[in-house]
Amino acid sequence: MSSHTSLHHASHGSSPIDAYRIEDEPFYRSSGDEIAWFGHAYAHRLPMVLKGPTGCGKTRFIEHMAWKLRKPLITVACNEDMTASDLIGRYLLDAQGTTWHDGPLTTAVRHGAICYLDEVVEARQDTTVVIHPLTDARRILPLDKKGEIVHAHPDFQLVVSYNPGYQSRSKDMKPSTRQRFVAMQFDYPEKEAEAAIVAGEARVPMALAARLVDIAHRSRALKHRGLDEGVSTRMLIYAAVLIGAGVAPRQSCEMTMTQALTDDPDIALALRGFVEAYFT
Amino acid sequence: MSSHTSLHHASHGSSPIDAYRIEDEPFYRSSGDEIAWFGHAYAHRLPMVLKGPTGCGKTRFIEHMAWKLRKPLITVACNEDMTASDLIGRYLLDAQGTTWHDGPLTTAVRHGAICYLDEVVEARQDTTVVIHPLTDARRILPLDKKGEIVHAHPDFQLVVSYNPGYQSRSKDMKPSTRQRFVAMQFDYPEKEAEAAIVAGEARVPMALAARLVDIAHRSRALKHRGLDEGVSTRMLIYAAVLIGAGVAPRQSCEMTMTQALTDDPDIALALRGFVEAYFT
Amino acid sequence: MSSHTSLHHASHGSSPIDAYRIEDEPFYRSSGDEIAWFGHAYAHRLPMVLKGPTGCGKTRFIEHMAWKLRKPLITVACNEDMTASDLIGRYLLDAQGTTWHDGPLTTAVRHGAICYLDEVVEARQDTTVVIHPLTDARRILPLDKKGEIVHAHPDFQLVVSYNPGYQSRSKDMKPSTRQRFVAMQFDYPEKEAEAAIVAGEARVPMALAARLVDIAHRSRALKHRGLDEGVSTRMLIYAAVLIGAGVAPRQSCEMTMTQALTDDPDIALALRGFVEAYFT
Amino acid sequence: MSSHTSLHHASHGSSPIDAYRIEDEPFYRSSGDEIAWFGHAYAHRLPMVLKGPTGCGKTRFIEHMAWKLRKPLITVACNEDMTASDLIGRYLLDAQGTTWHDGPLTTAVRHGAICYLDEVVEARQDTTVVIHPLTDARRILPLDKKGEIVHAHPDFQLVVSYNPGYQSRSKDMKPSTRQRFVAMQFDYPEKEAEAAIVAGEARVPMALAARLVDIAHRSRALKHRGLDEGVSTRMLIYAAVLIGAGVAPRQSCEMTMTQALTDDPDIALALRGFVEAYFT
Amino acid sequence: MSSHTSLHHASHGSSPIDAYRIEDEPFYRSSGDEIAWFGHAYAHRLPMVLKGPTGCGKTRFIEHMAWKLRKPLITVACNEDMTASDLIGRYLLDAQGTTWHDGPLTTAVRHGAICYLDEVVEARQDTTVVIHPLTDARRILPLDKKGEIVHAHPDFQLVVSYNPGYQSRSKDMKPSTRQRFVAMQFDYPEKEAEAAIVAGEARVPMALAARLVDIAHRSRALKHRGLDEGVSTRMLIYAAVLIGAGVAPRQSCEMTMTQALTDDPDIALALRGFVEAYFT
Amino acid sequence: MSSHTSLHHASHGSSPIDAYRIEDEPFYRSSGDEIAWFGHAYAHRLPMVLKGPTGCGKTRFIEHMAWKLRKPLITVACNEDMTASDLIGRYLLDAQGTTWHDGPLTTAVRHGAICYLDEVVEARQDTTVVIHPLTDARRILPLDKKGEIVHAHPDFQLVVSYNPGYQSRSKDMKPSTRQRFVAMQFDYPEKEAEAAIVAGEARVPMALAARLVDIAHRSRALKHRGLDEGVSTRMLIYAAVLIGAGVAPRQSCEMTMTQALTDDPDIALALRGFVEAYFT
Repeated sequence: MSSHTSLHHASHGSSPIDAYRIEDEPFYRSSGDEIAWFGHAYAHRLPMVLKGPTGCGKTRFIEHMAWKLRKPLITVACNEDMTASDLIGRYLLDAQGTTWHDGPLTTAVRHGAICYLDEVVEARQDTTVVIHPLTDARRILPLDKKGEIVHAHPDFQLVVSYNPGYQSRSKDMKPSTRQRFVAMQFDYPEKEAEAAIVAGEARVPMALAARLVDIAHRSRALKHRGLDEGVSTRMLIYAAVLIGAGVAPRQSCEMTMTQALTDDPDIALALRGFVEAYFT
Repeated sequence: MSSHTSLHHASHGSSPIDAYRIEDEPFYRSSGDEIAWFGHAYAHRLPMVLKGPTGCGKTRFIEHMAWKLRKPLITVACNEDMTASDLIGRYLLDAQGTTWHDGPLTTAVRHGAICYLDEVVEARQDTTVVIHPLTDARRILPLDKKGEIVHAHPDFQLVVSYNPGYQSRSKDMKPSTRQRFVAMQFDYPEKEAEAAIVAGEARVPMALAARLVDIAHRSRALKHRGLDEGVSTRMLIYAAVLIGAGVAPRQSCEMTMTQALTDDPDIALALRGFVEAYFT
Repeated sequence: MSSHTSLHHASHGSSPIDAYRIEDEPFYRSSGDEIAWFGHAYAHRLPMVLKGPTGCGKTRFIEHMAWKLRKPLITVACNEDMTASDLIGRYLLDAQGTTWHDGPLTTAVRHGAICYLDEVVEARQDTTVVIHPLTDARRILPLDKKGEIVHAHPDFQLVVSYNPGYQSRSKDMKPSTRQRFVAMQFDYPEKEAEAAIVAGEARVPMALAARLVDIAHRSRALKHRGLDEGVSTRMLIYAAVLIGAGVAPRQSCEMTMTQALTDDPDIALALRGFVEAYFT
Repeated sequence: MSSHTSLHHASHGSSPIDAYRIEDEPFYRSSGDEIAWFGHAYAHRLPMVLKGPTGCGKTRFIEHMAWKLRKPLITVACNEDMTASDLIGRYLLDAQGTTWHDGPLTTAVRHGAICYLDEVVEARQDTTVVIHPLTDARRILPLDKKGEIVHAHPDFQLVVSYNPGYQSRSKDMKPSTRQRFVAMQFDYPEKEAEAAIVAGEARVPMALAARLVDIAHRSRALKHRGLDEGVSTRMLIYAAVLIGAGVAPRQSCEMTMTQALTDDPDIALALRGFVEAYFT
Repeated sequence: MSSHTSLHHASHGSSPIDAYRIEDEPFYRSSGDEIAWFGHAYAHRLPMVLKGPTGCGKTRFIEHMAWKLRKPLITVACNEDMTASDLIGRYLLDAQGTTWHDGPLTTAVRHGAICYLDEVVEARQDTTVVIHPLTDARRILPLDKKGEIVHAHPDFQLVVSYNPGYQSRSKDMKPSTRQRFVAMQFDYPEKEAEAAIVAGEARVPMALAARLVDIAHRSRALKHRGLDEGVSTRMLIYAAVLIGAGVAPRQSCEMTMTQALTDDPDIALALRGFVEAYFT
Repeated sequence: MSSHTSLHHASHGSSPIDAYRIEDEPFYRSSGDEIAWFGHAYAHRLPMVLKGPTGCGKTRFIEHMAWKLRKPLITVACNEDMTASDLIGRYLLDAQGTTWHDGPLTTAVRHGAICYLDEVVEARQDTTVVIHPLTDARRILPLDKKGEIVHAHPDFQLVVSYNPGYQSRSKDMKPSTRQRFVAMQFDYPEKEAEAAIVAGEARVPMALAARLVDIAHRSRALKHRGLDEGVSTRMLIYAAVLIGAGVAPRQSCEMTMTQALTDDPDIALALRGFVEAYFT
């Protein structure tokens, strides 16, 4: 592969979290008071969990908040193969000897970023446990391997996301972890708002966007009845983009909704029925 | 990431446990004679287990005791991916060759700290077994890989915590481990005491705090009937903080209690009922 | 083993993705508008999933598209032992110290290749999760271990393949991953087209190729009734090649179809029956 | 962490097993001829297994015997994450190159210590298998990785412990391992002897000790009927120590027996009933 | 252990695949046209799977073909602990830095050997997946970790073996892998041919060999009725060798057939019955 | 730990297998023609499996044969945590660079020892698979990681042991492995022979030894009826040794038989009954 950067030159000359600052306002259409609520929670640095279905805008929201609060945002996509060291940091062997390297969580704690652990229940237990002393009165991160206790920067806040929809019981958050967070529930926007988002992002007329949103609403009613999730706002934008590019509406919906959501012929038939009701 | 500290400079010039001393008195409101009891146990260095539900103040208590006894406190949050080496220490390869590095338990044993293993049943067996020779008449920690037997500093004490509420049988403490500890049972404070804590920490009037405590008491009755744990004191403080910041009480309780505790619509409805009974 | 190339000399003197450019037009016989559809999707860099049975031409299609769009193509065959680091890159220890080496995904993101993750559901979760920020509005790849956020090259596109036929439920794509892709369904070509492919590739007469295609069609009807997959186009080419080389047709079909597809005597009998109907 | 000892200086200047010699006679109250029996077994270096419940004095016994026989004692607490290399030794990379380091078992074999594997059934199979050639006529320890066969020092003896009470079937000793050991069964001491131990160790009157022993006997009858183990001698000493320090007897027993032994409210009630029968 | 060869001297001075050339014609008795069929398949470099029971001569056949085609043969015995890196190669740290070392598959691909993966279904998935791009029109082996795509040498062919007899379903070949191979079915030779092999290899009279073959035939009828496999040709040769050396026929068959094949007393009785029918 | 031997000095100055030569005749009492049979098998270097219960003398037999045939004997106790590299060898990093070190099997193959894999079914699959090319006509050991094929020394023979008594089905030998070995069945010696062994080894009168053997015979009838294995010859020797040293016979049998064999009170009672029948 190509980019061979020496470990030592990589971090000189700039603050390690400059890369995590968001320069341009990320598009986010508020659907209530959630921006104010989050602002109050941040003012007291309460740990937050953003709950809600896939593709409803949780990531957009936290990016918008980080931009609005002018804080760097370090996002970590959690997964079951991630270790605590992946978050906290580790010693790496070097020509100059063994050197400690902060992980993304430690960087956020030390320099005052918002740390966003996306889909936190996917992570292994050791990952979840390391955040405990950061989410109570102590606000510390012990780096046991290094013999250092990092006291959180005053700007640091921990935010996690979580989709309660299709998690198995074994992937629930432990009560002792859950209780440390203030929760905000997210959902897809109201019909009109969603249509405006689709129209705006894909640059298609409102009427077309509204028809697509109607299809999505019907698909979301199939949730837990054959579909894990209905059509998301993101999928609607994909559909609108293809239609705008000249692909036939039915074919666009086939690619972005029906084929994308399911492999089950019966469910696919149902979804196609919704599409055909709006694009004859 | 940013902070590249050389392995060798990290530990020069100060005692390795200075970082673990607690300077300021941690807030703790006693609910009985537990401070005296722990004092007697510490006087004989009996190993202690603190039992009780999430967020009832076990961590606060041990921090208060460490401050009161003027002993450094080394806390380790246990988890199933933690190995015995994470506790005891290991050889690390260095430019100068392989060097032994004490783990947090060894540091505590050697220098006379209180070592607090939080949620000890989450740890793997090898972690539990290494504490056996520290918890009987021997009070030694064999570092087999190093060929050294560390005799515990006279000030060393081992304290572990344990939440019997929602542990599966497979995560119980082994009888041979259990029998080595003197147990103290913790629970949420009495109503009035809890209201005083909430009012004090969130700086809200006692009347508001009392109403929140009443909600918590009703939620705790749902334990084992749909909830793993009821509303904790910590959650009450979060709710009071948001209300104090101007978020409507119902919305504050929705975020800090209902949404934080459950994803089940029926349980959420019940919790919302409790809230609405006090905040109409 | 033989080829000892020093790590440092391997990547000098040419662009790291030159090796991934496709010089000669790969043979691909279109069966509809799929080339145009993919072109529109690529124009908006929509992430794509190619769905369809084994050996129906998904790999050929993406190679053809990469050639047509004049983009380098980096293909990764996913498997359950592959880690996120295998995709993203890692630090390697070197005589000059520890050096970062981009993985195939990072190379594609940085230099603007099409990255094709073949059989993506075979990969472990951490592999799937790293593609999330590449498949929404962010189009970034965070290299947490390196403290770098790679913004995708404008030419970069992510394409994955997926065979819904015989996957167990546990190997389905997670809904939060699925929703990020526009899907294109592939299947074996129409009879005449398939015969033309077989005749062309194996240099046998159309009449012979047509008989082989007929056998394949009958075998595909056994799918989910004892066969995981029917005879693929690739198998037909193998059969035609052997027949062209002088092996008796029945023996050729025995080796390339019956014995290749099944160990079950009853299914083998059925397949042999199909063969004998066309090669008496 | 603190104690950085160079790997090479650690073992100079003294015999590697001096640290394992027991200078002062460990307190042990014999309850029969077990000291003589063990003496005969040691005279022929027969491998021994000490069977018995938790906290009944097996560790004390072997420490006493090692002191009496003037042999160093190397104790290893077995656990399921321990590997054969943890026992035998391994090559470690060093500034001077790779160097072999004997593990605790090899040290005992080479220098003539008693090696005591505590709770041997907790160990992984590879640990159990390495002791086979040490426990038959060969009395050798092959260090395959080093290409060395260590013939046991004439003083070497292998002793293991094992608690048959609460082991699951899967954690039984393999028959091919079991057959290599002579077994000694241990149990809690007789009432009077146990009271004398409690009175002596905690420095309380015999009358008080006797009452505590009576409670223990009633608790031991609950074994296999809700309790994995009854109150051990060690727990009685803890209770006596706290009472001696001024904690009320009922509260002392609550902490050292009831809360320590069980989380089950019904069992706790039964234990409290035993306590109240003796401390009204 | 003994043979310390420096990593760098091992591969100088000769082609890396000279060690894999077969000088002397391996004994192989053809039972049909399989040599011609394989020759046609090799001429087009079709990937081959050799199917058949244990000990029927698959390994002999591929060695014979490699000798006949004058191609080096690299055999890898697959197993579930083998990784893709074991096949492809890896970077090894060296005094001169990190150096890439081709694995056996890469050596075969680069230098034009026949690569024979014995018992391929025993391998882990990542092993199976790496052969995909070698078995379609691409004939490439991507070394992702090295950033190199190896185009197969014109002489390279991939051959795998597979025993469908006693594989569990979970160890079947994946359909997407299966479809890439032309299959040849092997079985034990015809009675007379098998007797000739036994007589020739063990240098015993044909009459004796024929009697042994008769016993084998009766044992093979027990397959799936208590025996996983019947007596193989190899076992017959062992029996004949011992009889030739003067061991009594019944005892020879007891050792090479009955005791070798089964631990079940009933099955052993049945096998002994077969033996006694021929050696009274 | 103590013995720090430099990796490089360990193997100079003597043949690497001298340590494995057996100087003094190991005691072995033949119970039939097994020495002659093994001699014939060795003359043709047939791979051998020694089957039989624990402690019946398989290890003694192979040691005796190695002594008699004047071949070095390399014994490896197999276990489920052993890897193929533990048998074959590996590259180790050294101050002089990476150096290959033969494992015990490779040492035996290269220098002509008998390699004895004790309890082979305990090993992982990769261990079993590496012996395949050593046990057919090829008699080679490919060291894939080193790119070397070791042709077996003419004196090399592979012998494995296996206890069919208490193996679970999942731990059976694979048919493709089993078929490669000639089997010899071992059992405890005849009554008189066993008594002679016990009397000889423990230096007790024949009459006492005979009574102990009678007890063993009765215990062996309990096999599969509560006992995994009966009393072995080794256990009888232990009992005789203790009786000879002055421990009362009943107490000696309690320690060496009853307590050693079982934790089940009913089975213990039965065994005690056998003892009391002979030692009133």
